[in-house]
Amino acid sequence: MNAHLGGVWAASLTPLDDDLDPDVGRLVAHLERLFDAGCDGAVLFGTTGEATSFSVAERQQVLESILAAGADPDRLIVGVGCAAPVDTVTLTRHAGRHGVAGTLMLPPFYYKGLSDDDLRGAFDWIFTRVAAVSPPVLLYHIPQVSGVGVSPALAGRLVEGHPGLVRGIKDSSGSAESLHAFLAAMPGAAVFTGNELLLPTGLAGGAAGTISGPANVHSATIRELFDSRGANEKALAHLHAFRADMSVHQAVPALKAVMADRLRDPGWSRVRPPLAPLPLEAGRRLNAVDGSVPTPFGV
Amino acid sequence: MNAHLGGVWAASLTPLDDDLDPDVGRLVAHLERLFDAGCDGAVLFGTTGEATSFSVAERQQVLESILAAGADPDRLIVGVGCAAPVDTVTLTRHAGRHGVAGTLMLPPFYYKGLSDDDLRGAFDWIFTRVAAVSPPVLLYHIPQVSGVGVSPALAGRLVEGHPGLVRGIKDSSGSAESLHAFLAAMPGAAVFTGNELLLPTGLAGGAAGTISGPANVHSATIRELFDSRGANEKALAHLHAFRADMSVHQAVPALKAVMADRLRDPGWSRVRPPLAPLPLEAGRRLNAVDGSVPTPFGV
Repeated sequence: MNAHLGGVWAASLTPLDDDLDPDVGRLVAHLERLFDAGCDGAVLFGTTGEATSFSVAERQQVLESILAAGADPDRLIVGVGCAAPVDTVTLTRHAGRHGVAGTLMLPPFYYKGLSDDDLRGAFDWIFTRVAAVSPPVLLYHIPQVSGVGVSPALAGRLVEGHPGLVRGIKDSSGSAESLHAFLAAMPGAAVFTGNELLLPTGLAGGAAGTISGPANVHSATIRELFDSRGANEKALAHLHAFRADMSVHQAVPALKAVMADRLRDPGWSRVRPPLAPLPLEAGRRLNAVDGSVPTPFGV
Repeated sequence: MNAHLGGVWAASLTPLDDDLDPDVGRLVAHLERLFDAGCDGAVLFGTTGEATSFSVAERQQVLESILAAGADPDRLIVGVGCAAPVDTVTLTRHAGRHGVAGTLMLPPFYYKGLSDDDLRGAFDWIFTRVAAVSPPVLLYHIPQVSGVGVSPALAGRLVEGHPGLVRGIKDSSGSAESLHAFLAAMPGAAVFTGNELLLPTGLAGGAAGTISGPANVHSATIRELFDSRGANEKALAHLHAFRADMSVHQAVPALKAVMADRLRDPGWSRVRPPLAPLPLEAGRRLNAVDGSVPTPFGV
């Protein structure tokens, strides 16, 4: 039985060792902290997890390693987005064989200017090849990064065309209008916002929850915000301030620098190219904004 | 000894079988036609070759298969661009072991908004890992598709920082201004235009030649244009008309439809998702524009 697809999920960072290979020990400890601090689950290998900076084999190996280390597959969603649909098929089948709660699926993102029909053809091609083994699929809309979005109309057609398989979407556009368009286009599906600041309007409109990058470092605050149905003004203000401070950086290096400062573990700041690491003092500054907010790790 | 990096190179299409797997027989025959019709060489797995729609293993297998079938590695450049630098390293090493004339390298193209320093870090990370075995590298600038460009300043710094390894660039931006900016920023390097219509201004400014999608189907005409140093007005007019007609479609399905019509081989029109095939009649219309121009295959 899969975990319910809703609530507060962290778009997990992928910590690295000094060869810039995934550090399974740091990752397992990170997931335990996230769950202890109130996250319902974690998404591996989304944009925040630097998915597209790893090979298909590396992505499979990380999942196998953390499951072998005792991570609960019911609390994991695995990003399977790739430029090549054939790679997305490989990763989705692998995720299915390992019994995770779901997958998060970008559209193929290299070619631009494609029609909804073209993209539907690509998703159908993938779904035909994974239907027998796939976990529930969340579509992934993050056009400002991937360059290729999933329109509400396309998302609605995919839910209708693959009932029981396509179960929702993560909307990381950051737009409330977009979030409500998805809610209207795919009734009954699990619509997650990628921006926890949109929980108040999202939850009022029927959103399932958030899959959030800042949830890596503000899990408890986002939990409070979710549990208050978006009404906790203090939590909202802190998260707003954190996002504003973070916005001068690339998000992934910023979140990793926060982790490095929190844990006094400089190695946590490593990122894979093409991203570049931030100095620890950037993490210190980003941590200062919420000095008054309880965090899950006060080392 | 490698072939010289200049002249007319086709950005080769990748024909597919009815499982949408690469069709090595059709590809080998295609390369022979291209060389017979005047192409100096062919680039496998660029944007026109649907590179990013294949897995790393598929890309390696195609190269090995066509070399086993007798293709001349001195007339092949291999596209090694991937979202993940680690995959680009794998493909570059593989291309080097197989002795091809060069590689064509996109910047990692998922994350957007990166600085030139970030991208230089990514290229340096790759070059450090492939320097011992890499063929000459052409950088690949096609920002309207990849979403991540290579600035002239960055290209110049990479040529200076990796002498003998980074040997030039393919500029597929379609802009004459951009082409001249690369020529100014990387003196002595091999600057190819991705748009054969820019050969007149490009050759006058010192460009090495063109790596062209339309060269798949108008090899002889582009050869004439190159050999006239861009002065063949009739060739230029035909190529201009062809590009104008093609521009209403996605380029790859359009070029494959032209091939299918020319060869009376409907299977040639297949593309991998997310691209969608065009009907044969689209190929017929695109062929009609240049009925008076000699083509390498008048089946």
